[in-house]
Amino acid sequence: VTATRRVAVVGPGTDADPDLLSAAREVGRLLADAGAVVVTGGLGGVMAAAAAGAAEAGGTSVGILPGDDPGAASAGHTVVVPTGLGEMRNALVVRSADAVIAVGGSWGTLSEVALARRTGRPVVVLRGWRVLDAGGAEVDQTVADSPADAVRLVMTVVHPTR
Amino acid sequence: VTATRRVAVVGPGTDADPDLLSAAREVGRLLADAGAVVVTGGLGGVMAAAAAGAAEAGGTSVGILPGDDPGAASAGHTVVVPTGLGEMRNALVVRSADAVIAVGGSWGTLSEVALARRTGRPVVVLRGWRVLDAGGAEVDQTVADSPADAVRLVMTVVHPTR
Amino acid sequence: VTATRRVAVVGPGTDADPDLLSAAREVGRLLADAGAVVVTGGLGGVMAAAAAGAAEAGGTSVGILPGDDPGAASAGHTVVVPTGLGEMRNALVVRSADAVIAVGGSWGTLSEVALARRTGRPVVVLRGWRVLDAGGAEVDQTVADSPADAVRLVMTVVHPTR
Amino acid sequence: VTATRRVAVVGPGTDADPDLLSAAREVGRLLADAGAVVVTGGLGGVMAAAAAGAAEAGGTSVGILPGDDPGAASAGHTVVVPTGLGEMRNALVVRSADAVIAVGGSWGTLSEVALARRTGRPVVVLRGWRVLDAGGAEVDQTVADSPADAVRLVMTVVHPTR
Repeated sequence: VTATRRVAVVGPGTDADPDLLSAAREVGRLLADAGAVVVTGGLGGVMAAAAAGAAEAGGTSVGILPGDDPGAASAGHTVVVPTGLGEMRNALVVRSADAVIAVGGSWGTLSEVALARRTGRPVVVLRGWRVLDAGGAEVDQTVADSPADAVRLVMTVVHPTR
Repeated sequence: VTATRRVAVVGPGTDADPDLLSAAREVGRLLADAGAVVVTGGLGGVMAAAAAGAAEAGGTSVGILPGDDPGAASAGHTVVVPTGLGEMRNALVVRSADAVIAVGGSWGTLSEVALARRTGRPVVVLRGWRVLDAGGAEVDQTVADSPADAVRLVMTVVHPTR
Repeated sequence: VTATRRVAVVGPGTDADPDLLSAAREVGRLLADAGAVVVTGGLGGVMAAAAAGAAEAGGTSVGILPGDDPGAASAGHTVVVPTGLGEMRNALVVRSADAVIAVGGSWGTLSEVALARRTGRPVVVLRGWRVLDAGGAEVDQTVADSPADAVRLVMTVVHPTR
Repeated sequence: VTATRRVAVVGPGTDADPDLLSAAREVGRLLADAGAVVVTGGLGGVMAAAAAGAAEAGGTSVGILPGDDPGAASAGHTVVVPTGLGEMRNALVVRSADAVIAVGGSWGTLSEVALARRTGRPVVVLRGWRVLDAGGAEVDQTVADSPADAVRLVMTVVHPTR
């Protein structure tokens, strides 16, 4: 088995503006170009855009759904895992990836960023939420300024696990 | 069955300063005084302090552990659920509660706050992390300035589910 | 913390005949008398009967529900954990216990017996299903002939983990 | 998206004799020939053989691992989902599939058969364990007498969900 990097692309499933979706699509495409498998939460918005981008580049994407109906997955995903775990699947999305790129922000997205940081996975944030500690100091995050920058940053730090 | 409010107290398991632990203990005690069941992640730091506070008031606390060894739970917990889910148990802590009080901040704590917000559960933050959206605006959170304030706020908004 | 034995009582939630419910109630009562915490799947039938039995003896029972509505738990449970995991919670019921008593049989019950056996937990079967291997030989199970026998057998083999 | 049937192949990960492994490999190959995605628990024995068979036919297989190390997956799997759920992942293997073929028997295998039956998924058993109810009557299962028979039976009853 050739070692493959697996990168989760997380972000809002709804209320994502066209620029954000375009960025997510490019992130998915560039990850696939770089030989990474794209992991998403399987639904719409940023998840669907990242999977579509990976598909454009002939890559593989895995959609880890909150519900138990595989038909709920958005079209671009190569493989679908219907978990029936609800938002608990966010932890599985993170666990299935070597690193995470967050495109945009939402409470669900932040839960995935936080779980990835908690478990020591590299996280790159593109147009995402920022976090201040109780003293008001910004908590350090790796911030990208473009899809290409996000993919470059993540592919630099991620060691393939398989 | 008398309806009971169940409130998760989440916060750092390590590196919690004495003031934070004291605050968590008072939160646990006041919740038990108010008749609420305290739910925690079962380990040390803020979790142990909240359970100890509940025990002082003769209340009930449930520790939902990340590992599968019930012996890892800190002493004050009335009931222990060893999940073996790792950090995925954070979602179970949230799901088991009608509302969440975050005492202090960490990535694990933030994941629980975010999962609670994502699933519509009321969250009260005491000495916790703050969140800025991509535009730099602070995302609205209910902030308490003391343990008594936190418990008062959470008991006002929580509707008992059982 | 005094070490406590925790024993899961599993069995059909529906279609349980009065004799089976009576047996489950006596198992719950005898376990509580012996100082064990009773763990169940939180719903009706054998689960409700075991919890009611534990309550009669002033004991503690934990109901680990498949859904996310704590109100779905049957009345006798001391503490309820709404997991939202569906039938995946069967594994959590098993993991939360030091041993399992199966009262009656069903596919759900058999899944819990099999998961307990797979993970090395002692299982005692009372009026339960039997299993034949591919060669037609009966797979060894510890079979009890009464509630008292089931509780005696399980309390003999279970080492308290907390 | 073309609707795809997804079939879990479950069976012993250890102590599988050569005939059983050969049967599992043929099941995997025939499923892939029939256009189905093969889902396994990702490890050795019957799981590895089924994935290898699918790979021989140029098909897709998804390995849903109990641990959180993707490197633990056996070689033939196209996509790996490291869950960190332990034996609780058995429920996820079942949930990710439209139907289940059990090749051989073990307690872990029986847990998957039971969870599939509990959740209404078709199960075909090849050289698997049999089950007797409390009255000694055999519980009805669909039994195949060859890999080709197993695949034929499962493809007849499974309605594609995606």
